[in-house]
Amino acid sequence: MSGRPVPRPGGRSARVQEAVRTALRELEAEVGRSALTVPLVAARAGVTPSTVYRRWGDLQTLLSDAAVERLRPDAPPEDHGSLAADLRAWAEQFLEETAAPAGRSYLRDALLGDPEGGNAGRCSEYAAEQIRTLLDRAAGRGEAAPDAETVLDRVVAPLVYRVLFRPDGLDAVYAHRLVRDALED
Amino acid sequence: MSGRPVPRPGGRSARVQEAVRTALRELEAEVGRSALTVPLVAARAGVTPSTVYRRWGDLQTLLSDAAVERLRPDAPPEDHGSLAADLRAWAEQFLEETAAPAGRSYLRDALLGDPEGGNAGRCSEYAAEQIRTLLDRAAGRGEAAPDAETVLDRVVAPLVYRVLFRPDGLDAVYAHRLVRDALED
Repeated sequence: MSGRPVPRPGGRSARVQEAVRTALRELEAEVGRSALTVPLVAARAGVTPSTVYRRWGDLQTLLSDAAVERLRPDAPPEDHGSLAADLRAWAEQFLEETAAPAGRSYLRDALLGDPEGGNAGRCSEYAAEQIRTLLDRAAGRGEAAPDAETVLDRVVAPLVYRVLFRPDGLDAVYAHRLVRDALED
Repeated sequence: MSGRPVPRPGGRSARVQEAVRTALRELEAEVGRSALTVPLVAARAGVTPSTVYRRWGDLQTLLSDAAVERLRPDAPPEDHGSLAADLRAWAEQFLEETAAPAGRSYLRDALLGDPEGGNAGRCSEYAAEQIRTLLDRAAGRGEAAPDAETVLDRVVAPLVYRVLFRPDGLDAVYAHRLVRDALED
């Protein structure tokens, strides 16, 4: 329905994206964030700089796009037998990933190259999808459960807010307390 | 106690900071964010570019610093006679300011030029101070009240998370609901 051509999975466009993202990741580790440039990333990826500019616009947008890819969960959340246990484990892992220096910088990158909020929205949607999976599982077990938006407000929002703005004293105990409070109401 | 010289209020350093921040604000309105450069801002402020680089390092840090200044509340929160009314009014105004395009971009700027989180921490501290004022007032009236960290988790965090990552459907009704839920527990 969209006017934009949809690239075939595995087609040239997908291969270029993968090559550029890999080049970015490698170079970031080798030369550090502040030395990254579009020509450097393009050369490593074996494409022309104009290919990168055409697809991403600038380095900041490329970093933002790559950050969202890295924040995408690669598997559904684990099943621990109850909603409380599932949410506790999920929140603990989410905190571990986002509070690490790399995770915090991915969250900032996702916000950064993205004035319209599309990339930030995708990050939030990844968390929402994981939570919906846990809530569907709870419904299947006949457990009472809050809705996904409430879990976002009561568990995800405080974790992300504190990772970004107020990181002192963030630990698994805190994450577990958020989950307990969210389920008690 | 610190080894760093503390600039006298109203001294040269304070005047330079004020001139640079004013220049930044004016130029942002006139030429737009993407056309800003350190030499342009310095010229308007009547200082040398090296003065700006020495004080702020780069444009992103300057933007981050200016954003924090703009997010600083200029008055204590209003007294509406009860904690519920005070927090409702405060949350509504906080949402109005941060959800506006300028407010959202200040939040992002505060995060952006600030890898160590000092500026982001100051933003959070501004909100925490306002909330502590409301809670002290409530204590003075003999009202039961949650602690400031709980209000940060239950009211501020969801507002900031949604402004940055999930802005659909954010309105005063939502802010009021967060306040009601925070006070009910």
